[in-house]
Amino acid sequence: MPPSLEPPADFASLRALLTDLPVPDAAAIEAARARQAVLTKPAGSLGRLEDLAVWMAGWQSSARPVLDRPHVVICAGNHGVAAQGVSAFPSDVTHQMVANFRAGGAAINQLASSIGASLEVIALDLDRPTADFTQSPAMNELETIWAFAAGFQAVPGDAHLLVVGEMGIANTTVAAALSAALIGGDPGDWTGPGTGVDAAGVALKAAVIRTALKRHAGILGDPLSVLAALGGRELAAMAGAILAARMRRIPVMLDGYVVSAAALVLHTLSPSALDHCLAGHVSAEPAHRALLAHLGKQPLLDLGLRLGEGSGAALAVPLLKAALACHNGMATFAEAGVSEG
Amino acid sequence: MPPSLEPPADFASLRALLTDLPVPDAAAIEAARARQAVLTKPAGSLGRLEDLAVWMAGWQSSARPVLDRPHVVICAGNHGVAAQGVSAFPSDVTHQMVANFRAGGAAINQLASSIGASLEVIALDLDRPTADFTQSPAMNELETIWAFAAGFQAVPGDAHLLVVGEMGIANTTVAAALSAALIGGDPGDWTGPGTGVDAAGVALKAAVIRTALKRHAGILGDPLSVLAALGGRELAAMAGAILAARMRRIPVMLDGYVVSAAALVLHTLSPSALDHCLAGHVSAEPAHRALLAHLGKQPLLDLGLRLGEGSGAALAVPLLKAALACHNGMATFAEAGVSEG
Repeated sequence: MPPSLEPPADFASLRALLTDLPVPDAAAIEAARARQAVLTKPAGSLGRLEDLAVWMAGWQSSARPVLDRPHVVICAGNHGVAAQGVSAFPSDVTHQMVANFRAGGAAINQLASSIGASLEVIALDLDRPTADFTQSPAMNELETIWAFAAGFQAVPGDAHLLVVGEMGIANTTVAAALSAALIGGDPGDWTGPGTGVDAAGVALKAAVIRTALKRHAGILGDPLSVLAALGGRELAAMAGAILAARMRRIPVMLDGYVVSAAALVLHTLSPSALDHCLAGHVSAEPAHRALLAHLGKQPLLDLGLRLGEGSGAALAVPLLKAALACHNGMATFAEAGVSEG
Repeated sequence: MPPSLEPPADFASLRALLTDLPVPDAAAIEAARARQAVLTKPAGSLGRLEDLAVWMAGWQSSARPVLDRPHVVICAGNHGVAAQGVSAFPSDVTHQMVANFRAGGAAINQLASSIGASLEVIALDLDRPTADFTQSPAMNELETIWAFAAGFQAVPGDAHLLVVGEMGIANTTVAAALSAALIGGDPGDWTGPGTGVDAAGVALKAAVIRTALKRHAGILGDPLSVLAALGGRELAAMAGAILAARMRRIPVMLDGYVVSAAALVLHTLSPSALDHCLAGHVSAEPAHRALLAHLGKQPLLDLGLRLGEGSGAALAVPLLKAALACHNGMATFAEAGVSEG
């Protein structure tokens, strides 16, 4: 039975989807490992590239996995909590940057082009920000599932890899709130400068989150209710895209802190839900490292990026391409007449 | 006066070259920094990518540097010290792998192809290994300068980036010997498993180096005499290629432990001699991290590679390409109509 390609219609059907997720193909993994063992190099000498090739084999059910069609999806949203002054930029910038993505002028456009990726921007109701989560839930169930479905339906079935990115003024505050709600610890442990607020701004973000966690204390035990209460639309959409990719056995490259927080919702619902995901990088946002550790993900890159847009994830794609190029293109010891030592 | 393109004919002229090295273009750096400041992203949010673009601008004397023609040079040599049993592989493998490089079957062939790089293999007298450095100097001055010149002449003048790699059974022992001789510390601090020797093998490597350092104690104050005494030909050739690139203002991507040890010879002669070099990665060879720290180089990647061939350096090239793609292709705030916050 092929996995469902219909997005879930409510939280109950979303939870049900997560109970029966596709898993990697053990036979393809075994075949890829056997191939790695006879390629002309000392065993293990390509380090993580070897693991990446074998991992891709499992998801593609092929001993010779390919990565010709990476696809970037950028989810954009606006946040009522921006009214609390948690960002260095006005909310208008979300809309302006979506226009910039569509015109090809942003960093992610250059990066997507450099990896030969297609790119789609999903702007989620930018003119209707979510509610300020210090006052009420950011979204209700219907708004949440609508945004989730928008991301779910944005995954092309023929993509070889999905790169997930985002844009949304104030969304590092949302990511910090979700992390604090779903993992625990003081909100101050999960907040950082985002696009560039100062120490007072970081303290304000933490205070805003403390207020929100008190207001929503009654629903913190349910990850989907937490997603609805703290938002935002682009995070729900990214969670939807990550799950849709899993249903289609398409590997995912996660970007920074906000994308990881969206992924955290799925991980909290089902610890194996992110088995098809790689962490492209660890960002300069201080809490990202701890969030990735909680998700059990070792980042591929650590270059001090803190832009979002999927930039750090796109930057890691050539590593995966290189891993497959070696895996598929190298000669074996027998083919090359090289002694195995 | 254009910089000399003739390789040095002896150690004295090599030392003289190092006293008058080209430096980065301050005006181009300034212009590139000014451009970075107006691109549509929060200031500094592309992290190290911004520094890489500005750095390339300095070496190319252009506010819009390009990277269309990367070139990989692999230097291969054989080592008398292999007779001491310091490697998991027989010396024949150097020759076999050179054939594999030329046939296109090695990891570096796939990686060079994936970055659109040309590739040249310089096999240095493979059938005439250097002398066993526990018994006598590995090379005399003439042999050393000949190998240095072979690398010096292998740098295409129109390359936008030089990737330096190597192949040579037993050459991590040579790299460890050079590191111990030129930096100090116990030889055990500089030895590791290389392509895969066990703990007893690592101890043997350290013991072999201790013997060599005693034998050559009289010349340890002169880096070029150390290079000659401990070898090997491929390390001298790589030092030559790195210096030739500098004379032509071509940036260099360094690979792993052995390449870094070759670069160390130049660095010891003149601390600014590697200003045009980036460290592509830190390898799994344990001492590589300390060697890079000594050279003042922060690696771009850390993926557990320990293959050599230039593989880790080639793997880092897409990061540099991506940095330039963003630098040259992004819209400015004014062009895109985005608020600067």
